[in-house]
Amino acid sequence: MKYNKVTPEIIEDLKKIVGERNVICDPESLEAYSHDEVAEKEYAKMPDVVVKPTSTEQISEIMKLANKHMIPVTPRGAGSGLSGGAVPLCGGIVLSVEKMNRILEIDKKNLMAVVEPGVVTNEINNAIKDDGLFYAGYPMSVETCYIGGNVAENAGGGKAIKYGVTSRYIMGLTMVTPEGDIINLGGKRVKDVTGYDLLHLMVGSEGTLGIFTKIIVKLQPMPIAKADLLVLFKSVKEAIDIVPIIMTNGKIIPTSIEFMDELSFKTSCEYLNEKLPYQEANAMLLIELDGDNMAIIEDQYETIGELCMKNGAIEVYVADNATTIERVWRIRRNIAEAWKLVSPHQSLEDVVVPVSEIPTFMDRLADLQKKYDVSIPCYGHAGDGNLHVTPVKNPDWTLEKWYDTLHELLPEMYKMVAELGGTISGEHGIGHKRKDYIHIVLSDREIEFMKKIKKAFDPNLILNPGKIFDL
Amino acid sequence: MKYNKVTPEIIEDLKKIVGERNVICDPESLEAYSHDEVAEKEYAKMPDVVVKPTSTEQISEIMKLANKHMIPVTPRGAGSGLSGGAVPLCGGIVLSVEKMNRILEIDKKNLMAVVEPGVVTNEINNAIKDDGLFYAGYPMSVETCYIGGNVAENAGGGKAIKYGVTSRYIMGLTMVTPEGDIINLGGKRVKDVTGYDLLHLMVGSEGTLGIFTKIIVKLQPMPIAKADLLVLFKSVKEAIDIVPIIMTNGKIIPTSIEFMDELSFKTSCEYLNEKLPYQEANAMLLIELDGDNMAIIEDQYETIGELCMKNGAIEVYVADNATTIERVWRIRRNIAEAWKLVSPHQSLEDVVVPVSEIPTFMDRLADLQKKYDVSIPCYGHAGDGNLHVTPVKNPDWTLEKWYDTLHELLPEMYKMVAELGGTISGEHGIGHKRKDYIHIVLSDREIEFMKKIKKAFDPNLILNPGKIFDL
Repeated sequence: MKYNKVTPEIIEDLKKIVGERNVICDPESLEAYSHDEVAEKEYAKMPDVVVKPTSTEQISEIMKLANKHMIPVTPRGAGSGLSGGAVPLCGGIVLSVEKMNRILEIDKKNLMAVVEPGVVTNEINNAIKDDGLFYAGYPMSVETCYIGGNVAENAGGGKAIKYGVTSRYIMGLTMVTPEGDIINLGGKRVKDVTGYDLLHLMVGSEGTLGIFTKIIVKLQPMPIAKADLLVLFKSVKEAIDIVPIIMTNGKIIPTSIEFMDELSFKTSCEYLNEKLPYQEANAMLLIELDGDNMAIIEDQYETIGELCMKNGAIEVYVADNATTIERVWRIRRNIAEAWKLVSPHQSLEDVVVPVSEIPTFMDRLADLQKKYDVSIPCYGHAGDGNLHVTPVKNPDWTLEKWYDTLHELLPEMYKMVAELGGTISGEHGIGHKRKDYIHIVLSDREIEFMKKIKKAFDPNLILNPGKIFDL
Repeated sequence: MKYNKVTPEIIEDLKKIVGERNVICDPESLEAYSHDEVAEKEYAKMPDVVVKPTSTEQISEIMKLANKHMIPVTPRGAGSGLSGGAVPLCGGIVLSVEKMNRILEIDKKNLMAVVEPGVVTNEINNAIKDDGLFYAGYPMSVETCYIGGNVAENAGGGKAIKYGVTSRYIMGLTMVTPEGDIINLGGKRVKDVTGYDLLHLMVGSEGTLGIFTKIIVKLQPMPIAKADLLVLFKSVKEAIDIVPIIMTNGKIIPTSIEFMDELSFKTSCEYLNEKLPYQEANAMLLIELDGDNMAIIEDQYETIGELCMKNGAIEVYVADNATTIERVWRIRRNIAEAWKLVSPHQSLEDVVVPVSEIPTFMDRLADLQKKYDVSIPCYGHAGDGNLHVTPVKNPDWTLEKWYDTLHELLPEMYKMVAELGGTISGEHGIGHKRKDYIHIVLSDREIEFMKKIKKAFDPNLILNPGKIFDL
């Protein structure tokens, strides 16, 4: 696709649409819009211009202008993505929704809220907690990410085992199509089978099919009781084997079952100077429970504790107050930071396998570590089989050797995942970081259908080009 | 689209694919495949031939043959649909999945089952109940419908308020595309953001985008405690106003909140000779609770009972054993049967409005009844705003007058629903019964996108033509 450059005339037109102060052209300010949270410079690209619209109508006009002049447009939320989805690969316009950050309505009767895409996800929860309500979408970056980005990526996180992922909570979208039309999908209705489910096709479309300008999210009563268990195991296999046992024998669906391997938690504990007696352990589970009644939660954590001890756990620590809950979650949250001290060069991966295949996957991962002489800490959402495998550059290596190794290691790992019935991304998305690898898990026919859908919505290929696949 | 007739040569080719006894041509046997549960003759159409494949590969061959000769193919499950979705509108081949009725795998470790499309939905639950598991998709026809049809229609039912609809439980599909390719979407993984969500685009596509041949469904621990409340109110408004109060003030998400208006429950109670002292009541709620602990359920029904009494209920009956639970559900389930005695000509509708708009909708429905001089009993899933409004033919009218009236009444009601933020079908689908009305709730642009998706998957328009929209 041949795109045109942004000319001074186009800049003037953009200023007419969004106002002069909402058009950014100076290179220093543009730099912040050239990358997301993927650290590697190879994934960054400078935009020609950043615009900050404040209404659906302005976005519609921008898209019409961009189609007229064949200028690519890359929508952007908080920039907290992990697959390069908000990077303007072909230059052109970055369309930031940062100024569309209002909570428009909290509808307690229908248990829904209407929000703009630039609302920080956690702000929704802050706005409704006094009403005893909560929004159950919960990416780990909930305190910085925007709800618009959550919808675009179909964000997952640590509570999906009980609450599902973002798509479950998206009831309606006002959206600007790539050609600039404004459409409404879904609404404040719990059921809807009127034609194809375009609404949920948009969720997870990574900003390639439309720009969301109003989002209707589902709310629910907030659980009032909570506890966490930190469980130490001698082996990965024992830790993982307990996951389905909790759900079937124990009849309990925890809020989270987070897994950390030895490389992950030891580095994090050392970094935090955490004094847990973890020396014998080779795997940890962090299990969260929530509900409406503390007595029930206590029953549940006792049941889970017994099941864990019967199945080889070394020790079960209960955290049932805010201070100790925070202490155990800090270990989980600080893994990536701790490993950055070992080496700033890492590739944060996001593979998924069936829960039952995690032990096999971990065995094969150990073989990969040996074969490539690379440390690969592994942690993540065991209850979902969604693992943040993170190859870390050996500090002694040159960058060239690191990237050469990574470009062999990643496809080998992705093939392993595919053989086990898994896939290459559970929640971070394909973006442009993983687009060369989708053929490992998707058939040519599937990719062809996806491309046809893209062309149906965006015949000029204006919106977020270069993501998921090349056209 | 110009289709060809099924010739004797094509019949021979079909016999080679599925075997002689799995090809049905005699008109008497074909009649059963000419309609679904929509009673009106105007919605029926005879197929030229019915085939009963037993494998994915056979279906692939049938679709390739049909494309070669330009013969339409209409897939069919149990024929329990309510929108004419399985009716072969353009003649041709009806492809019945009735012989693909095996439960292929119950995977307790991953809490999933793999089933063929012709499995009766309730059979899944029968197969797993000894393991303490259940499948939470629950259309009201669960004892007769097929899981394949549930996926095609994105079936809802009475438990959606707590458990969601079918789409939440569909993890993977093996599917034959309209052109005869075999593809696998999703799999045994809880999270997946690898490209567009084709899997859930298929759910609710009404047999127009592909034929499902293996379905991976999610299972979960079976709740062991259960109770139902039957609550009588003097007005519809009081009954509906309590729904969000239960969820917000009461912090309880019931399994079901079923609503019945006076016309519905009185006719059903008389039909059943049920002696409940309902005379003063103008609305009833049937509220079901389930969970893992009977003490909690008792707490919950006491809370709900108090909230109902405080908000104007006449009486709250508790059914906490199987016999009384069955007694109250019989009233709900027999409404349609009871009204068939009044008149066999009814139009079972399936509208959805935001829960908060149900009282306004019911007021306007009363105006419609007066305007058209038609009885319109109304019952359904109040917790979802999904109401089975059912205009019933005045027994004194000619059929001509009835259909003339219906063709004015329905669009007026659908426009009313659209104005209230609702839609024309929550769980029964568009099929061909409602296709003339989708423009009332969908924009031209949305319909255009849907048509482009249809053409992307089915360039020859072979699969289930004439459903949802005309092309």
